[in-house]
Amino acid sequence: MINERVLTGDRVTGKLHLGHYVGSLQNRVRLQEQYDTFVFLADVQALTTHFEKPELIRNNLYEVALDYLSVGINPNKATIFIQSMIPEIAELTVLFSMFVTVNSLRHNPTIKAESKNSKIDDLYYGFLGYPVSQAADITFCKATIIPVGEDQLPHLELARKIVRRFNELYRPVFKVPHALISDTPRLVGTDGNAKMSKSLGNTIELDSSTEEIAYKIRRAKTDPARIHKNDPGHPDICPIFAYHCAFRSTESLEIREYCEQGSLGCSACKQFITTALDELIAPMRERRSYYAARPKVVADILMSGTHHAREIAQETMTEVRDAMCLNYFSE
Amino acid sequence: MINERVLTGDRVTGKLHLGHYVGSLQNRVRLQEQYDTFVFLADVQALTTHFEKPELIRNNLYEVALDYLSVGINPNKATIFIQSMIPEIAELTVLFSMFVTVNSLRHNPTIKAESKNSKIDDLYYGFLGYPVSQAADITFCKATIIPVGEDQLPHLELARKIVRRFNELYRPVFKVPHALISDTPRLVGTDGNAKMSKSLGNTIELDSSTEEIAYKIRRAKTDPARIHKNDPGHPDICPIFAYHCAFRSTESLEIREYCEQGSLGCSACKQFITTALDELIAPMRERRSYYAARPKVVADILMSGTHHAREIAQETMTEVRDAMCLNYFSE
Repeated sequence: MINERVLTGDRVTGKLHLGHYVGSLQNRVRLQEQYDTFVFLADVQALTTHFEKPELIRNNLYEVALDYLSVGINPNKATIFIQSMIPEIAELTVLFSMFVTVNSLRHNPTIKAESKNSKIDDLYYGFLGYPVSQAADITFCKATIIPVGEDQLPHLELARKIVRRFNELYRPVFKVPHALISDTPRLVGTDGNAKMSKSLGNTIELDSSTEEIAYKIRRAKTDPARIHKNDPGHPDICPIFAYHCAFRSTESLEIREYCEQGSLGCSACKQFITTALDELIAPMRERRSYYAARPKVVADILMSGTHHAREIAQETMTEVRDAMCLNYFSE
Repeated sequence: MINERVLTGDRVTGKLHLGHYVGSLQNRVRLQEQYDTFVFLADVQALTTHFEKPELIRNNLYEVALDYLSVGINPNKATIFIQSMIPEIAELTVLFSMFVTVNSLRHNPTIKAESKNSKIDDLYYGFLGYPVSQAADITFCKATIIPVGEDQLPHLELARKIVRRFNELYRPVFKVPHALISDTPRLVGTDGNAKMSKSLGNTIELDSSTEEIAYKIRRAKTDPARIHKNDPGHPDICPIFAYHCAFRSTESLEIREYCEQGSLGCSACKQFITTALDELIAPMRERRSYYAARPKVVADILMSGTHHAREIAQETMTEVRDAMCLNYFSE
């Protein structure tokens, strides 16, 4: 076990799907073997966009917790916790916000892209500042390794700036975190859209049944230029081929060859991937149904993970209060 | 005792002076007899402008606590607490920030005036949002009566909006707070500036010695048109006359008459106000030296006030978590 902490989490606005599995979850399952891994259910960050739907956040928090457990995030190895139950994150957010300019938030490329249809005035204050809150997520537990996609790099850069500024203004309390950039490209949606995304309705959820997987793959787009079974196919524009690469990479060269030759029909090709996905998801379903039948066990996992995270948060806040002369009555 | 709570406080960026006494402190001493009065040491808000000087905030927090005790804020009647020690204020700040637009902050007349030399981009994120934090100060303890100056009215209006919006989005947890507008005009500085203000160096502190009072009044500006003792004076442009109105109001009509007749010289007039101010401040000095000699007593007062405020904050947060579906594991 390397003496560094990984922090990663998800906004709990919907169940997770294969896109999340490829993009981050499978990586976390590996990381927990090497690092002290913290995985959090980002309910406060979900509120930045879903403040009108608190029930949705609550319900999805439970589903995402099941997603974590079902893919093999092991509560004996990783700490799974709930963001809103760590008040120190809010305290750090408020303290950091003193020395972060509106400028550095407003011109953050990701905030810009996510709010491209809004002028700065129309943004919610909390949304504009969510990268500050992310810096608090990272620092409360002094995480140093942050697995991120390319689009999250500007946020991590801000977190690094905040850490350096805090350490320079007060005392070197925090370690500067580093990005661990995922080398996995985005997973294409079943409709051929570049991104598998709940809002596009092109996802395969991690709790899909065998029938659901078969149905979604049967309906998935393929190479639109291929009309007859024996036409040569164009795997590079086919979502099904992308799934072969992501989930059956050893066989994908062969698939490419047969597809391009026109010797493998789409129907048979889809059958291969349906079987592979079902094999991938079957043990997830099994673990999920184990935990879903034991809500008390899930609650205990979340409570004990949150308790552990909270203890670390309190230690960090003591150091922060000392550094910022906010440690009244502590002598 | 009326069943409503008053909330009021001060940014702890400097010792308090006669301007604070006239504008708010003497009012608080009255309010504590009628209402459940909460008075807080706003160290977090002080950080919005003084984040580079945490020691200054820490030192002034203690001085302002002595100011409170010296003017007669009675810890057996009022709750005196430290803002940064109520993490629930930070939690509420973060939650409220989800549904407050940047617009409503940016176009707040007070924020505009206070940042007139900065463009929005140059503002600090925490400074832009300090009215959200003020709404959290008010709501954590469900205060309904907020003594404010005219310049703070836009902030209170925002707090009222936040309360209404929260109650409408989730559940009616909060009461809509009301302003109690001070009828006391600003106290003029000893240099004739319209406002007594530390940054202008024209203040008389509440811990001034007899000699300091005499010295500052002796050096204070008077009617500049009056050269000889027997010239008729213009009391309306004389800071000393303003002090007569503020601190010797029953005698002020007589003073006006003699001044305008030229029958009361500035030196004698200053002597009257010096005596009056010394009589006002003498018991403050006495109480201050009592408490200054007993730091443990002061710490106990602040700890027990903070503890009381914290208990209320925790009750409120339980209701807020229930309302926002953030009450995990609470059944």
